[in-house]
Amino acid sequence: MKTIYFRDFRKTGDDAYDLRAALEACRDEGAKRLVFDRNTYEINSDRCFERSLNVSNHGWNGPHRIAVLIENMKDLELDFSGSTLVCRGEIMHFAFLFSERITLKNVIIENPQTGCVQARVVSNGDGFTDLEVTHGKEQLQIRRGMPFSVRQGCLIPLLTNVEFNGESGAIERGTADNTLNPSPGELDFEMLSNGLMRVHHVKRCPPIGNYLVFLFTHRFSAGIFCEGCTGLCFKNVTVTSCYGMGLIAQLCKDITLDNFSTKRSGGRMYTANADATHFVECSGEIRVENCSFEGQLDDALNIHGIYTRIVEKSGRELFLKEMHKDARGIRIIGKGDRLSILKPDTLLPYTEITVSDVEYINSDIIQIVANESLENVCAGDDAENISHTASLVFRGNTVRDNRARGMLIAAKGKVLIEDCFFSTSGSAILFEANGEYWFESGGTSSVEIKNCIFKDCRHGLWGNAAIECAPRKAVEPEKYFHREIVITGCSFCGSATQISLDNSQRAVIKNNTGCKTPVLSHIGSVEADNND
Amino acid sequence: MKTIYFRDFRKTGDDAYDLRAALEACRDEGAKRLVFDRNTYEINSDRCFERSLNVSNHGWNGPHRIAVLIENMKDLELDFSGSTLVCRGEIMHFAFLFSERITLKNVIIENPQTGCVQARVVSNGDGFTDLEVTHGKEQLQIRRGMPFSVRQGCLIPLLTNVEFNGESGAIERGTADNTLNPSPGELDFEMLSNGLMRVHHVKRCPPIGNYLVFLFTHRFSAGIFCEGCTGLCFKNVTVTSCYGMGLIAQLCKDITLDNFSTKRSGGRMYTANADATHFVECSGEIRVENCSFEGQLDDALNIHGIYTRIVEKSGRELFLKEMHKDARGIRIIGKGDRLSILKPDTLLPYTEITVSDVEYINSDIIQIVANESLENVCAGDDAENISHTASLVFRGNTVRDNRARGMLIAAKGKVLIEDCFFSTSGSAILFEANGEYWFESGGTSSVEIKNCIFKDCRHGLWGNAAIECAPRKAVEPEKYFHREIVITGCSFCGSATQISLDNSQRAVIKNNTGCKTPVLSHIGSVEADNND
Repeated sequence: MKTIYFRDFRKTGDDAYDLRAALEACRDEGAKRLVFDRNTYEINSDRCFERSLNVSNHGWNGPHRIAVLIENMKDLELDFSGSTLVCRGEIMHFAFLFSERITLKNVIIENPQTGCVQARVVSNGDGFTDLEVTHGKEQLQIRRGMPFSVRQGCLIPLLTNVEFNGESGAIERGTADNTLNPSPGELDFEMLSNGLMRVHHVKRCPPIGNYLVFLFTHRFSAGIFCEGCTGLCFKNVTVTSCYGMGLIAQLCKDITLDNFSTKRSGGRMYTANADATHFVECSGEIRVENCSFEGQLDDALNIHGIYTRIVEKSGRELFLKEMHKDARGIRIIGKGDRLSILKPDTLLPYTEITVSDVEYINSDIIQIVANESLENVCAGDDAENISHTASLVFRGNTVRDNRARGMLIAAKGKVLIEDCFFSTSGSAILFEANGEYWFESGGTSSVEIKNCIFKDCRHGLWGNAAIECAPRKAVEPEKYFHREIVITGCSFCGSATQISLDNSQRAVIKNNTGCKTPVLSHIGSVEADNND
Repeated sequence: MKTIYFRDFRKTGDDAYDLRAALEACRDEGAKRLVFDRNTYEINSDRCFERSLNVSNHGWNGPHRIAVLIENMKDLELDFSGSTLVCRGEIMHFAFLFSERITLKNVIIENPQTGCVQARVVSNGDGFTDLEVTHGKEQLQIRRGMPFSVRQGCLIPLLTNVEFNGESGAIERGTADNTLNPSPGELDFEMLSNGLMRVHHVKRCPPIGNYLVFLFTHRFSAGIFCEGCTGLCFKNVTVTSCYGMGLIAQLCKDITLDNFSTKRSGGRMYTANADATHFVECSGEIRVENCSFEGQLDDALNIHGIYTRIVEKSGRELFLKEMHKDARGIRIIGKGDRLSILKPDTLLPYTEITVSDVEYINSDIIQIVANESLENVCAGDDAENISHTASLVFRGNTVRDNRARGMLIAAKGKVLIEDCFFSTSGSAILFEANGEYWFESGGTSSVEIKNCIFKDCRHGLWGNAAIECAPRKAVEPEKYFHREIVITGCSFCGSATQISLDNSQRAVIKNNTGCKTPVLSHIGSVEADNND
């Protein structure tokens, strides 16, 4: 097996540029492995790759800088030997595009400049709190008391702040977003001459020693981005910090994460700026095993498709619209794909069609031609690509101390969540899907949650129960959004509602401890036994 | 000659979509003309074209919406029969990409939502002025007294304001940018309950009845964008308003503008948001005749190349960097091109090289291989592509009442400016080129300014004379940036300096009236005769 060693290409003093040469050599020489010496590689964005990308759930289409680009390649293993890859600012560590059977292993991903600001609570006064900014100060601009991050001359407003307990590192008990004031627009930021930052109009003074992390509204990049790939494997990959999500994969098939972790370092209470992992319109099997997710500023895992709205029907043609700005420009429908058509309020499919032709008019509008008559299809309803169906194995993982939820499950294939530990301030597992705002699809067919520990989940305000099905706006008698949810052998502790299931044909809740009385609504058949 | 009529394609009620079908028919059927009935066509951006574009001097790379896209086409005439093409917001009216022999005629371009705000001065108080916002109010957001335009959730700061005299429509005499306060960051904007907008901390209260136009910092689109085309002709084209420049052409050869105008309408004192016309790295002949330019919020015409900086030399390889953000991502160098290498302070070339290979590393860095030894080439110096050399005929045109200058001339080919009328608040003709900030190149070879009228030019603060050469930071004895500037038969009036030439091998100033005593420095030979 031909192996190429990066050390043989470190010639110019610019690792970004030398990486380009090394990857070209892999391609030219048909090498199957690219091996790096254990080291810290600092990637200067000046000479790194660039591609125009539409990254789902990041919402910023256009040119993106990329440290390591794997594009149209096959059968390659990148072994960083435990190295740290440091990027600064708006740059992706890795992009895997339209490639097959690629493995990335033994690498630590770090980005100290991700548009986040972390501050330690030093003291509190009457309606104000004084903070020591420990991270991200150079990315902060205050104009007339309002905090912004700045990108290419545009001001990016504050999205929210979250609060970490200074001792435990957990999300401060009972808090969620905007811990200083539920109306963050009222806050007034001031840099004091002693170097501290004072925030005025604080409604709830945070405990001294706690850490506040301020997030701004835009996700201009991601840690690892994957599109159109088959057979990706990530082994021993640690994200200490990155712009946007840790790993976002769209339109990929078969992905394995083995010991992929978000892990705090450098005094940061946060890791990825957004979700740790996120899978959109994927198919095949997604395996996530032996992973640990902490400190990410959104969910640990989210898996879903994308609903589009039928804006017009004309003969056998449909005009479909990407309804959420973060889904724009992604080529989610191909010739031959099978679409399910459903009502936005119930998300229940009422017919299926096959795509015989597709044209992307622009980032928003997809024009398709159907094989079938569209007599029954109504404009105003939603469409979902059911040819992209992924199953998920989530086993032996730990999720803790992050903003928002643990997992958002909207995978149409078989889902197994086994031997995991959750300690999340929001819901640990949320069955989410939404046809009217986020447009993240869809319903599940078979979900098994087995032998997991849920420790004090949902002590904050994100969600309503440790395991929860988000309700639909409307239901139909004897029709269900989910087919089967099985929860067995799990252990729950904490004061919140533990299980709240809705809109499933079958629910099995057996042999669990501490799950209290499950809240159940619109369930076809329930088997609830031997819980205590 | 096969003609296609747009009326035959107006079927769906969506002109953007029907245009797509009509243009496809032109291509499929080899039609030479696409003719529109005289009408007002409102283009809904929902279904219009989209391309990822890097538009010079606009600085916003990525996806752009386009109402009419001519791409890889040949020998086509678009005749709008006097129609008005209305677009709203961030959308280009026309993009001509990699096409040959295309004519656009008889069209009026209008965009009522270009991120500009116009307001009429209603009254003045002690340090404040009250304004009636007449245009663009829906694009304005005021946060804590600061005005912004908003794009995809980002706040776009105020760039400047200009002031038009309410009676004459000219730029208010003696003013330039920021007429209310030279430090616009001190201004405080407030929407009063009576619907007026009050601006506090005004240092100079504007005359009642004058109009203020507020511009924001970013140019997210353009009226007409051309790239990589040969043989474009624009005849009877009127821009009443557009986002960004009226017409921006880059890397094109042979362009004719005949009766291309920027013209006010709808109560707007401004027309294009930026330059009326702009030519970058073009070649062949640019002809601009019988045109009228008024109200544009930057120069009437700017023609130049782009200097890149040599950031590294390695054997026969050079790494060139795009130095200005508005030049990023434009493919200005091709195989076989001839580059001139010059010192940034003098902009005097000291050697030439031929490009045998070129790779675009990303939007910033271009890696080239030279045919020749690079022994004499120094990193830190600038490079200019001299294979892109355009001549310019600017004849029978009127330029008046716009922000900034009339013409910025940095064309390396022959330049003839004849029978024109200029009444500009800044310099009418500025020989600009800059190797240290804008990086707009280059020196001229032969310029003739003949039988033109300069009426009260440069009464404001943009530039130093009606006709002016911007000085270089350094000069060398007996070496010159310009080769020959001839000014004959022109008539000047106004109190400003009329002619200020610098750094030209030869200057001829003959048979002019009212030009006072020209200011001349570092000129090889001067012929100044028969002026009064």
